Amino acid sequence: MPYPQLAVTVDVAIFRLIGRALHVALIHRDTPPFSGALSLPGGFVRGQEDTTLEDAARRVLTDKTGVSTPYLEQVASFGDATRDPRGWSVSIAYMALVRPETEVAEITPRGGDLIWHSVDEEALPAPLAFDHDRILGAAIRRLRDKVEYSSLPAHLLPEHFTLPELQAIYENLIGRSLDKSAFRKRMAEADFVEPVEGVKRAASHRPPQVYRLKDEARPVLFNRSL
Amino acid sequence: MPYPQLAVTVDVAIFRLIGRALHVALIHRDTPPFSGALSLPGGFVRGQEDTTLEDAARRVLTDKTGVSTPYLEQVASFGDATRDPRGWSVSIAYMALVRPETEVAEITPRGGDLIWHSVDEEALPAPLAFDHDRILGAAIRRLRDKVEYSSLPAHLLPEHFTLPELQAIYENLIGRSLDKSAFRKRMAEADFVEPVEGVKRAASHRPPQVYRLKDEARPVLFNRSL
Repeated sequence: MPYPQLAVTVDVAIFRLIGRALHVALIHRDTPPFSGALSLPGGFVRGQEDTTLEDAARRVLTDKTGVSTPYLEQVASFGDATRDPRGWSVSIAYMALVRPETEVAEITPRGGDLIWHSVDEEALPAPLAFDHDRILGAAIRRLRDKVEYSSLPAHLLPEHFTLPELQAIYENLIGRSLDKSAFRKRMAEADFVEPVEGVKRAASHRPPQVYRLKDEARPVLFNRSL
Repeated sequence: MPYPQLAVTVDVAIFRLIGRALHVALIHRDTPPFSGALSLPGGFVRGQEDTTLEDAARRVLTDKTGVSTPYLEQVASFGDATRDPRGWSVSIAYMALVRPETEVAEITPRGGDLIWHSVDEEALPAPLAFDHDRILGAAIRRLRDKVEYSSLPAHLLPEHFTLPELQAIYENLIGRSLDKSAFRKRMAEADFVEPVEGVKRAASHRPPQVYRLKDEARPVLFNRSL
């Protein structure tokens, strides 16, 4: 049976903290369409090569940025006749969260400079290629929407962290201070971090306990927001 | 430039209340693959015909069920090498909410019986065709997740409703009683219903005011859950 086919891409918004500021990875396109513009890292889904959409997103991530990350989430799909001048196309958008210490190629393995751009609305270099402004906007909203009621912010921390560092990242992304004892109670209920046995920060008289995520690939949703 | 193409479908979970029970529309497939099995209404995205993915979902909805609805929401996308025996395919899943009084063809315009199945987990006739069990599961979760903090339940009511009817649909979907004055306060804050001028239910000594949705196509999200 002959049936219609379309171009399908995966495009990935890769988020990372630089200092206290949330940044996203953008690539200078060196081939048409939109040659010279910035875009999210992305590529076609290849039926011969990829087993699932998520496989395709992981392949694109590694091929284009050298990054692999345990945390990848599908955001939404965007498809219409005009977003790509080559014709009807569908983009399956993902977001990835990487730790601050992750090594990322500055020149991507497949060519094209990779830059980290602050996600502050004023700083974003619009317009991006294709409809990537819209896709990036959806990914930023998804991340911000989840900050208050999930373990997502912890995926932006280094592998080992203290509870004050965990609280600071939530406060940073939410934009307000949180009560220390209420925060610790909620973290204990949500049960997504575990102490790293025998590891403490030696800087003070009573060195703080160091923690890590119980499961790096699976975020935990809270019963109610912070 | 030659680039890879894939089959892309839209599949729609259409929800409707029958009595107090949430139901979903399923179609008896009369063509392969999965001939004889039940599936969600769906079809290929046609680049020549559809302008956007949402257009395609609306076309499929009308062609296959005779239903048109103001409320349609993208749920997620599912794509891999094995979900369709014909080869690699991507399904963009939507959910639609229709009012109880909506007329729905019993024999679909394109052939195949349409049946309404209760969404109670025990009653679902698994396995559905393709990966539609998984898609339907995702749509049910999305709907249930949003019940507590959005106007979504109101989209399952008749065009005109009273506040006690509105409260009853929330209680029904959430599965617990709600305090009347707290509920009314939250509805007033969320500001998504408006009185229908001059229309009251005449059944009682003090006939209750009748309301309708301010905007049928756009649900409102609450600041906090009910």
